Amino acid sequence: MSHKIAIIGASGYTGAELIRLIATHPKFEIVALVAHNKAGKPMDEVFAHLRHLNLPPLSTLDEVDFSDVDLCFCALPHKTSQEVISQLPKHLKIVDLSADFRLRDPESYAKWYGNDHSAVEMQKEAVYGLTEFYREEIAKARLVAGTGCNSATGQYMLRPLLEKKVVSPDDIILDMKCAVSGAGRSPKENLLHSELSEGYNAYAVGGTHRHLGEFDQELSAVAGEPVKIQFTPHLLPVNRGILATGYVKGDPQAVYDALVEAYKDEPFVLVLPFGETPSTHHVRGSNFVHIGVTGDRIEGRAIVVGAMDNLTKGSSGQALQNANLMLGENETEGLMMVPLFP
Amino acid sequence: MSHKIAIIGASGYTGAELIRLIATHPKFEIVALVAHNKAGKPMDEVFAHLRHLNLPPLSTLDEVDFSDVDLCFCALPHKTSQEVISQLPKHLKIVDLSADFRLRDPESYAKWYGNDHSAVEMQKEAVYGLTEFYREEIAKARLVAGTGCNSATGQYMLRPLLEKKVVSPDDIILDMKCAVSGAGRSPKENLLHSELSEGYNAYAVGGTHRHLGEFDQELSAVAGEPVKIQFTPHLLPVNRGILATGYVKGDPQAVYDALVEAYKDEPFVLVLPFGETPSTHHVRGSNFVHIGVTGDRIEGRAIVVGAMDNLTKGSSGQALQNANLMLGENETEGLMMVPLFP
Amino acid sequence: MSHKIAIIGASGYTGAELIRLIATHPKFEIVALVAHNKAGKPMDEVFAHLRHLNLPPLSTLDEVDFSDVDLCFCALPHKTSQEVISQLPKHLKIVDLSADFRLRDPESYAKWYGNDHSAVEMQKEAVYGLTEFYREEIAKARLVAGTGCNSATGQYMLRPLLEKKVVSPDDIILDMKCAVSGAGRSPKENLLHSELSEGYNAYAVGGTHRHLGEFDQELSAVAGEPVKIQFTPHLLPVNRGILATGYVKGDPQAVYDALVEAYKDEPFVLVLPFGETPSTHHVRGSNFVHIGVTGDRIEGRAIVVGAMDNLTKGSSGQALQNANLMLGENETEGLMMVPLFP
Amino acid sequence: MSHKIAIIGASGYTGAELIRLIATHPKFEIVALVAHNKAGKPMDEVFAHLRHLNLPPLSTLDEVDFSDVDLCFCALPHKTSQEVISQLPKHLKIVDLSADFRLRDPESYAKWYGNDHSAVEMQKEAVYGLTEFYREEIAKARLVAGTGCNSATGQYMLRPLLEKKVVSPDDIILDMKCAVSGAGRSPKENLLHSELSEGYNAYAVGGTHRHLGEFDQELSAVAGEPVKIQFTPHLLPVNRGILATGYVKGDPQAVYDALVEAYKDEPFVLVLPFGETPSTHHVRGSNFVHIGVTGDRIEGRAIVVGAMDNLTKGSSGQALQNANLMLGENETEGLMMVPLFP
Repeated sequence: MSHKIAIIGASGYTGAELIRLIATHPKFEIVALVAHNKAGKPMDEVFAHLRHLNLPPLSTLDEVDFSDVDLCFCALPHKTSQEVISQLPKHLKIVDLSADFRLRDPESYAKWYGNDHSAVEMQKEAVYGLTEFYREEIAKARLVAGTGCNSATGQYMLRPLLEKKVVSPDDIILDMKCAVSGAGRSPKENLLHSELSEGYNAYAVGGTHRHLGEFDQELSAVAGEPVKIQFTPHLLPVNRGILATGYVKGDPQAVYDALVEAYKDEPFVLVLPFGETPSTHHVRGSNFVHIGVTGDRIEGRAIVVGAMDNLTKGSSGQALQNANLMLGENETEGLMMVPLFP
Repeated sequence: MSHKIAIIGASGYTGAELIRLIATHPKFEIVALVAHNKAGKPMDEVFAHLRHLNLPPLSTLDEVDFSDVDLCFCALPHKTSQEVISQLPKHLKIVDLSADFRLRDPESYAKWYGNDHSAVEMQKEAVYGLTEFYREEIAKARLVAGTGCNSATGQYMLRPLLEKKVVSPDDIILDMKCAVSGAGRSPKENLLHSELSEGYNAYAVGGTHRHLGEFDQELSAVAGEPVKIQFTPHLLPVNRGILATGYVKGDPQAVYDALVEAYKDEPFVLVLPFGETPSTHHVRGSNFVHIGVTGDRIEGRAIVVGAMDNLTKGSSGQALQNANLMLGENETEGLMMVPLFP
Repeated sequence: MSHKIAIIGASGYTGAELIRLIATHPKFEIVALVAHNKAGKPMDEVFAHLRHLNLPPLSTLDEVDFSDVDLCFCALPHKTSQEVISQLPKHLKIVDLSADFRLRDPESYAKWYGNDHSAVEMQKEAVYGLTEFYREEIAKARLVAGTGCNSATGQYMLRPLLEKKVVSPDDIILDMKCAVSGAGRSPKENLLHSELSEGYNAYAVGGTHRHLGEFDQELSAVAGEPVKIQFTPHLLPVNRGILATGYVKGDPQAVYDALVEAYKDEPFVLVLPFGETPSTHHVRGSNFVHIGVTGDRIEGRAIVVGAMDNLTKGSSGQALQNANLMLGENETEGLMMVPLFP
Repeated sequence: MSHKIAIIGASGYTGAELIRLIATHPKFEIVALVAHNKAGKPMDEVFAHLRHLNLPPLSTLDEVDFSDVDLCFCALPHKTSQEVISQLPKHLKIVDLSADFRLRDPESYAKWYGNDHSAVEMQKEAVYGLTEFYREEIAKARLVAGTGCNSATGQYMLRPLLEKKVVSPDDIILDMKCAVSGAGRSPKENLLHSELSEGYNAYAVGGTHRHLGEFDQELSAVAGEPVKIQFTPHLLPVNRGILATGYVKGDPQAVYDALVEAYKDEPFVLVLPFGETPSTHHVRGSNFVHIGVTGDRIEGRAIVVGAMDNLTKGSSGQALQNANLMLGENETEGLMMVPLFP
């Protein structure tokens, strides 16, 4: 028997990615697609690559009968998301892909996002959706907060190192390179092809990117002490893929061993042989994370590189992985597609 | 029970694409991967995106025990392919992805490929692998010849028009735009990123491209008279996708109706609403063909546009579709993945 | 002594391209930059690649003292352009880069652009700015209309053929491939990097693109009889470059000879050796047009391919070429930069 | 009167870039182009974007009469370069673009390049070609060694900081992102468009990249003590542009002031307003370096970002800048072209 699925925010890239994944999921059935600005349109007008699927038309939120919906993915912008989610029926399981329920502390939320949280109780209830580290809580949760793609990438690289205390927590640098799709589908001058193609640049330099709120919360919890990393995102002229180059102080072999140990039974997180480095090419369109460790020529320093697809493992793939857990299905169901290369 | 599959020429792009598709096929099991130049290497050294799969290492042809192999995909360059295939055991079903068995006439082969065919008997036996038009023969065949990606695209657009005689056979132009991956993985100066990115050009202008051999053979057969089209390929700085813009003389509505009728029950060939045009964006990584028809401002002329992924429907996807038929499986098995967008 | 130059519409791509070219022009001095929405900003905030230049800040039109301006480039959207230009002082020489003064017939303008022309007298006065064919008129003109980049490319290929009557005027097809920058800098969903990268599609199929108004006007005038061509533009994931593949009926050698003869003394229009085809790679950032001719395998048919940079020769380079003529300077001044490859 | 110029290694990208720049240089005249593998070919067959120039055909070294050549650019691979240069006539001024004369210490050369240096005397004589820091020596030199593009970028960012001692020399990280053209034009699998487009990866991780030899030599000399930085290059799917993100420990304002002071009179090195960050988009095809400084949220740490075009300022532009000095011309001659954007 299928689980009935609704997707709110179905006209954005993470919404489309959810549909891509769920379309071949044997146990999930999409019964409602919500997108206010495009309500009334058939989905193939909004995303022509979904043309062959028999999907419900886009609708407003009001038009959806949630009574027989089992789980709802919410792929709205932050702030809007909390407003919508707080009004959804209580029987619904919810996987939120926005930033609204990632931070547990209302003050931290207000600091990083610039507005007070309007659903503080739900914020407390929400489980942080980094599947590999919150598996049990997720399985029992009603509301799961999808993680930021940057912070997920970084946490896969850093959590085992801080937990095993094999690196200095005061000297961690993540130089992040992100694909454009993470910035969404809203038309903005800086996201035009003409502005991006054949060039690249850093942005939010100096510790101002909002995902640092998640980094601070999660890495401090893992380390058992306050951890502040340096984090510089860069925008690259590609559509999918996120790659982080991490600079840590610690014994490279110990760093490597901690990662191997942490992920030895994980289906999606692969640690490469020591000295090899991953590429976004090799995870495109898939739910895999590839992590590589190399020792620097300066003793006691290691470089850790992680790569994944920002729309899949970094967002909608992780969301589906969590939904599988929440609905009692095999965690990998619908997620074993091979990366698309070239 | 699984069918045992071997892939010869596993270190090229079509080989890798076959593995991508077969990896999630419930009834196929890869038991041998042949790649002479890279024999002995584990597959993840050659294609790191396949790292998570449990694949046999690359081997030489001699090392393969074909006795329990059911079907072999052969993804070698032309000429090499006929030499290898003619020496394979006779119990094997074979899907060849090269150009070697596409042309039925040895003289035509010699003309377009510049060498005599060394396996003329097999050439006669081979079935042309354009699934939608040779379905029954393919199901019974021992040897199926994969079609050229350009000629497949064009045939999906033109065959119904010639069969129904709704266009003039003397005035057909196909302006083709091809992705780079079709040129393969062998290092050549003109395929370097620096040579291709941010630009484009025509090549093989004037009717010299080898796929014209296929066009001539197939379109003449369909039309019942000699048909020669004009065909100009262009190389575009993208990795996947082939789009053909066809200029025909005939009533646009009749053209449209012929295509709708021809493909109304086909799972992979979608005719768009009249006046819409397809995009390679919307078929990437999938086995779908999208076809659109528009009337020109000049009466009695129509523009037909077709798009597909050159590595999937244009090569390895079609090959798997044919293998499904040859082994008695559902034709769409392993092929219903949704296009990857963005 | 320098000529004083103003640029209206300086915050778009053609405006920026004008500045790029004029910056190294020995006789031109930019004294005013107009951009209403960004008035008050320094230019390096709007186009950081111009950071090293000592440019006037962006201003409103009202703020400009045109009394000592010699020539004004107007790079506004059509319709806005005619309104602005009709109010400029009469002593000013003007090169308009919009579509507003390309068509001489008010009815044709209304048909293709959907609104009546509000400056019909100026429309009559304007000289069509295809430099190589209107050189003398341009040198004496007060108002020159820059041509559309698509129609310029096509006219370089077709005018000599129609003039010399070496091709049939009833069977001309231009399959055009255009870079993204031609669509401008206004944020639109379909121009986002995520929507465009790694794919391509046709648009305005069937003879609906506005540049057909120019084609009809100019090619009919050259041929001395009404000429209607077929024209299909395609959008490619690159930032610069336009390439047209032309299918004509006529003797290939006669076609070639007509082009060689027409351009033998032209500094910017290069006809390649017979059988060679141009590439947008080889004209990027330059004012050159490359044209190649090949005979088709079908007798009596030729393929003509033309390439240029849509922002340079297709727009701002041509505009500067015309301004040079209007101000009595050497036509090639500031325009001999070598294409940027790779 | 013109200076007579020869280019050895004219069939590679840096050779072509030299020709692009020299073509519009008012005082330089190219009299010989050497490319062994392509000797005898006209240049437009090798680089069609140079088609409009009246260039000598490619020749072998033996065919060149160097007696009236004033200066020779040598754009050969390292090792070959030293062999060729050591046999050139002694009257010739030489700008070498290879790595062969960058390192002053033969042992360091042997360590990083894997072979003994065969022209140790010339190695001693050569002047390191980072123009802004070796201007006087370059003006008097006979042999100038072009710098590595990575190490040049890094040195522009770091030299003033080490000289003014505003950062800790023990904690410097350069995360470098490089365009593909830096890897040259020789066909290699990993440089194919299909392998690179739409993805990215680190390489030479852990301090193994050869440019570290230059970093160690130069930064230690500036600091007056041994300096070893961490340096990780990444390959990006673009053709031009190098961007380095530097992580340093020191007061951000002091860091900024040191850079502003160092470059306040430099025509090509621009320090952006505090807090802004550069982009490779804004230097493409130009000889400019853009540098930005931002303070991190962690006190006492700064992020310095530098960007330039690897083929221009990173290689051939710098070479021409040095040649101007060596021949007594204005240093900026032929180098003031505006970046190409978009």
